Amino acid sequence: MNSINLNRHDIKRSIKAATGTTLSAKSWLTEAPLRMLMNNLDAEVAEHPQDLVVYGGIGRAARNWACYDKIVEVLKRLESNETLLVQSGKPVGVFETHENAPRVIIANSNLVPHWANWEHFNELDKQGLMMYGQMTAGSWIYIGSQGIVQGTYETFVSVAKQHFAGDASGRWVLTAGLGGMGGAQPLAATMAGFSMIDVEVDESRIDFRLKTRYLDKKATSLDEALAMIDAAKSNGEAVSIGLLGNAADIFPELVARGVVPDVVTDQTSAHDPLNGYLPKGWSMQQAADARKRDEAAVVAAAKASMAIQVKAMLELQARGAATLDYGNNIRQMALEEGVENAFDFPGFVPAYIRPLFCQGIGPFRWVALSGDPQDIYKTDAKIKELIPDDPHLHNWLDMARERIQFQGLPARICWVGLKDRARLGAAFNDMVASGELSAPIVIGRDHLDSGSVASPNRETEAMLDGSDAVSDWPLLNAMLNTAGGATWVSLHHGGGVGMGFSQHSGMVVVCDGTAEAGQRVARVLRNDPGTGVMRHADAGYQIAVDCAHEQGLDLPMLDQSN
Amino acid sequence: MNSINLNRHDIKRSIKAATGTTLSAKSWLTEAPLRMLMNNLDAEVAEHPQDLVVYGGIGRAARNWACYDKIVEVLKRLESNETLLVQSGKPVGVFETHENAPRVIIANSNLVPHWANWEHFNELDKQGLMMYGQMTAGSWIYIGSQGIVQGTYETFVSVAKQHFAGDASGRWVLTAGLGGMGGAQPLAATMAGFSMIDVEVDESRIDFRLKTRYLDKKATSLDEALAMIDAAKSNGEAVSIGLLGNAADIFPELVARGVVPDVVTDQTSAHDPLNGYLPKGWSMQQAADARKRDEAAVVAAAKASMAIQVKAMLELQARGAATLDYGNNIRQMALEEGVENAFDFPGFVPAYIRPLFCQGIGPFRWVALSGDPQDIYKTDAKIKELIPDDPHLHNWLDMARERIQFQGLPARICWVGLKDRARLGAAFNDMVASGELSAPIVIGRDHLDSGSVASPNRETEAMLDGSDAVSDWPLLNAMLNTAGGATWVSLHHGGGVGMGFSQHSGMVVVCDGTAEAGQRVARVLRNDPGTGVMRHADAGYQIAVDCAHEQGLDLPMLDQSN
Ligand SMILES: NC(=O)c1ccc[n+]([C@@H]2O[C@H](COP(=O)([O-])OP(=O)(O)OC[C@H]3O[C@@H](n4cnc5c(N)ncnc54)[C@H](O)[C@@H]3O)[C@@H](O)[C@H]2O)c1
Ligand SMILES: NC(=O)c1ccc[n+]([C@@H]2O[C@H](COP(=O)([O-])OP(=O)(O)OC[C@H]3O[C@@H](n4cnc5c(N)ncnc54)[C@H](O)[C@@H]3O)[C@@H](O)[C@H]2O)c1
Repeated sequence: MNSINLNRHDIKRSIKAATGTTLSAKSWLTEAPLRMLMNNLDAEVAEHPQDLVVYGGIGRAARNWACYDKIVEVLKRLESNETLLVQSGKPVGVFETHENAPRVIIANSNLVPHWANWEHFNELDKQGLMMYGQMTAGSWIYIGSQGIVQGTYETFVSVAKQHFAGDASGRWVLTAGLGGMGGAQPLAATMAGFSMIDVEVDESRIDFRLKTRYLDKKATSLDEALAMIDAAKSNGEAVSIGLLGNAADIFPELVARGVVPDVVTDQTSAHDPLNGYLPKGWSMQQAADARKRDEAAVVAAAKASMAIQVKAMLELQARGAATLDYGNNIRQMALEEGVENAFDFPGFVPAYIRPLFCQGIGPFRWVALSGDPQDIYKTDAKIKELIPDDPHLHNWLDMARERIQFQGLPARICWVGLKDRARLGAAFNDMVASGELSAPIVIGRDHLDSGSVASPNRETEAMLDGSDAVSDWPLLNAMLNTAGGATWVSLHHGGGVGMGFSQHSGMVVVCDGTAEAGQRVARVLRNDPGTGVMRHADAGYQIAVDCAHEQGLDLPMLDQSN
Repeated sequence: MNSINLNRHDIKRSIKAATGTTLSAKSWLTEAPLRMLMNNLDAEVAEHPQDLVVYGGIGRAARNWACYDKIVEVLKRLESNETLLVQSGKPVGVFETHENAPRVIIANSNLVPHWANWEHFNELDKQGLMMYGQMTAGSWIYIGSQGIVQGTYETFVSVAKQHFAGDASGRWVLTAGLGGMGGAQPLAATMAGFSMIDVEVDESRIDFRLKTRYLDKKATSLDEALAMIDAAKSNGEAVSIGLLGNAADIFPELVARGVVPDVVTDQTSAHDPLNGYLPKGWSMQQAADARKRDEAAVVAAAKASMAIQVKAMLELQARGAATLDYGNNIRQMALEEGVENAFDFPGFVPAYIRPLFCQGIGPFRWVALSGDPQDIYKTDAKIKELIPDDPHLHNWLDMARERIQFQGLPARICWVGLKDRARLGAAFNDMVASGELSAPIVIGRDHLDSGSVASPNRETEAMLDGSDAVSDWPLLNAMLNTAGGATWVSLHHGGGVGMGFSQHSGMVVVCDGTAEAGQRVARVLRNDPGTGVMRHADAGYQIAVDCAHEQGLDLPMLDQSN
């Protein structure tokens, strides 16, 4: 057992995806997953690459190093009519399919519901039988913190619209967590005009975000941080501050002092009480030791601390702060600890994101396999050309270019929907064909998207028809993307909100410039957001019904009462 | 709400699949699911066709009659590059795919784990948002009781081998339930040489099984039934008796009388305590009324009765009966009622079926779309020709032909494995091509198969490596069959053992005699059992490892220690 665990930690590993146009696999369709797997484990990209951990607590790219090596080996030999199966990060089989089938099919962390909890998962994980894939970690389309910047930015812009008449100046956000996803918060906040105090227990995470310029300043006491906020306010600036401390201390301290932030949220890895949340009063070393000795004690202490933090969030909400759950399931944890009104503050999806999902709009993204930033800048320009009439989107692209440092292979995120995805993909494929781009592009998205996830405490919270927990939808999405010819497809459980609370699917499709790829891209990038519009139209959202009609989706029961 | 429910019951409906070679759909690839959907609801096939209930408690073929009509309409217009998506029995979308993609993709009854229980399901079901698909009900490859006869027969043969030196003569089995699946028990028992008392509360079910000759006799008292057993014993015959009564009365009554059967099992629909098990002392009408008034009371009474029945099963086991759970989750229900040693008797899979699964052997089946029994007899002969050296299999085919009456479209079940499925499929496709068969054949299987299900209280109980609850495997199976070009593919939750306890996938592929179908059939019928061998090899079963080597499966980590 120990040997299996050790096998996950290898300090000699330093991984970087190849760039340029020389292939080590047999075609771009297999070179692409190879580079993207490696890119997920690039030290610039992953949180703990030597443990195979990409982001989000223990979200891994492969089960252990032996499995990683074997995946690489198989991708290099895989033929264009073969498909590799990956089971919780382990390459378990290669089967004959055909050219329009995915080259890789992935299922990570899935458990039969009655056993779908962290206790059972951790047992299997320890025995080397499973791996936590989070969302894009195990499905090889994580692009560093940029992947979450825009979603967070869009959310903060919506918060400003709903609560502050669109003007965030002089306002500030309290949050916690500067990990893989959480680290996007300070940049997104200042982009949207807010200042921010982001509480983080791990100083190395603060320093890492300072280095990548996602974060402006560091503070080591609440006094210092509040003084920085005041200074920014008087200067009419937006500043982001990483405050070294524990959220379960700092949040109640603000309540005690009577200081009320304008916005309150949290992005610690509360979804994983064993590995993702440092209990109040504990040092990081103490937690690391205790995890080896007594898992139940760590979980109990972490959940007790989360309850304290959530009570402070509720109190700050009562005193007027716009408070939201940012998708880490902290309300559920507090509820299980007896905080009965934990769900009194809303999740960010029903509050701010659902209207976008109704149009199939979500975290669309693409990566330049060349490694050349110019390729991304050319696609940025192409988007502006093809969507000339959307100043908000143009503004996003400009800010992204200016303020977001690439991590690993150059990539771009850009929230667009059913209306646009297929034509953008077709244009990118044409640019590869013509040589305008120096190598192929992969196009994918987060699992947190319109048609790809069932997660009643997050993406599907408070659906109009009460169908929050129905997970037929992401399964249909995965099978349809498989049928359509996405290059790799994945089905995961427990991403974002943890074991038992979500099921979701991913897809990535390669634009290699061929006509065949053009057809696959056209199909997949219409079908994939199409299932999102379908799912929301079926639930009764008028925006989705209208979008389905406008975009000519074929939804047989749409205009029937059943 | 009421109108939705009513919409599920329509006494004017009387459905029969078309036969012959005139198509009402645009190709055989869409005609096939159309006929098979209709065949599932044929009065000869389904348990309660006018309620859309095919078998297994409330296992349905479509969500309601409006959805059924729409599925029929869409299948008739579906093009050969389009795919219909079905979500819990509702046709929700048609998307463009390609000729080698499935024509129908189905996801039934799937719920995010934390909400995956009967209470939540029933709420959604009542609101018209879901449907219980069981295994082959919602995936349109149920073939009547024959589908289960062979599996039950193989199990009883194994029981005789393990416990009675291969000789069942003079021995008898006690069981309950004569529903869609349970009704196969008496025929399978007598085929294997056992007599049987099968306790059933619903006299119409007894009469139905008498009519189809699955059952030999009816008794209305235990005395009468036991006398029949004695008579059979003295005549050296095997006889099956349907005893009108409640299992929760009769099983303890045998304990009280000190009568010990040789084998004890049960096949009531215990997996569904609301709809599937009549509480002790209740009339069927009383239960029907109570279901409308107070669901919780029905569930409580049913589970209390199951606990009584399981206690009697444990006592009969202690007194020497070979006792087994036949896959309806009755042990779990009793456990939840406080019967702590409920799992002391084994499930039938680890006890009798797993060695077959290790070789990809499972309930392979096919149906003649012509409606002509001769087509099946010709395939029977072809099997004997292609597998000349297996007297047990030949014997099965002979008995099946002699004793099994077709229900609906003529069909055959025949447990074969990785070694044989693809070549049998190829041979059938050739027979269609040459005109030897009068119309295309569909080939499918139960979800209860080697690589297609995770169900820790049944198919994956007591796996060698403890991976019982890992459901990555059936998801990979479904996606691989989608990638390979099965004609329809399904992913279900809760089949067999009920909500929360299983995830599983189905596939059906059409042999229309074309070369393209030949390729698809070859791929799918190798890959599908291949995933079963893979799953069992990964768990460490030597039979599976050997089979993988013999059959040349490409399992990258197989000979590695990871
Ligand atoms: N809203 C979204 O769109 C979205 C998307 C992805 C992930 N998430 C969720 O957000 C959460 C964070 O994701 P991540 O990738 O940043 O995770 P991560 O594990 O990389 O980072 C979590 C950070 O929280 C810090 N932390 C832990 N306990 C703390 C405490 N008590 N006080 C202060 N800091 C503490 C850790 O040191 C770590 O740096 C996860 O639950 C994830 O599932 C949300
Ligand atoms: N082992 C297998 O291979 C396998 C395969 C499929 C299904 N199953 C399981 O077997 C069970 C039966 O399936 P089915 O399709 O026959 O279901 P069904 O609902 O069609 O039939 C169940 C029968 O049990 C009878 N019954 C209910 N309560 C009773 C009681 N207290 N005493 C006596 N009879 C009672 C009902 O009247 C009904 O006829 C289900 O749980 C199903 O999931 C097992």
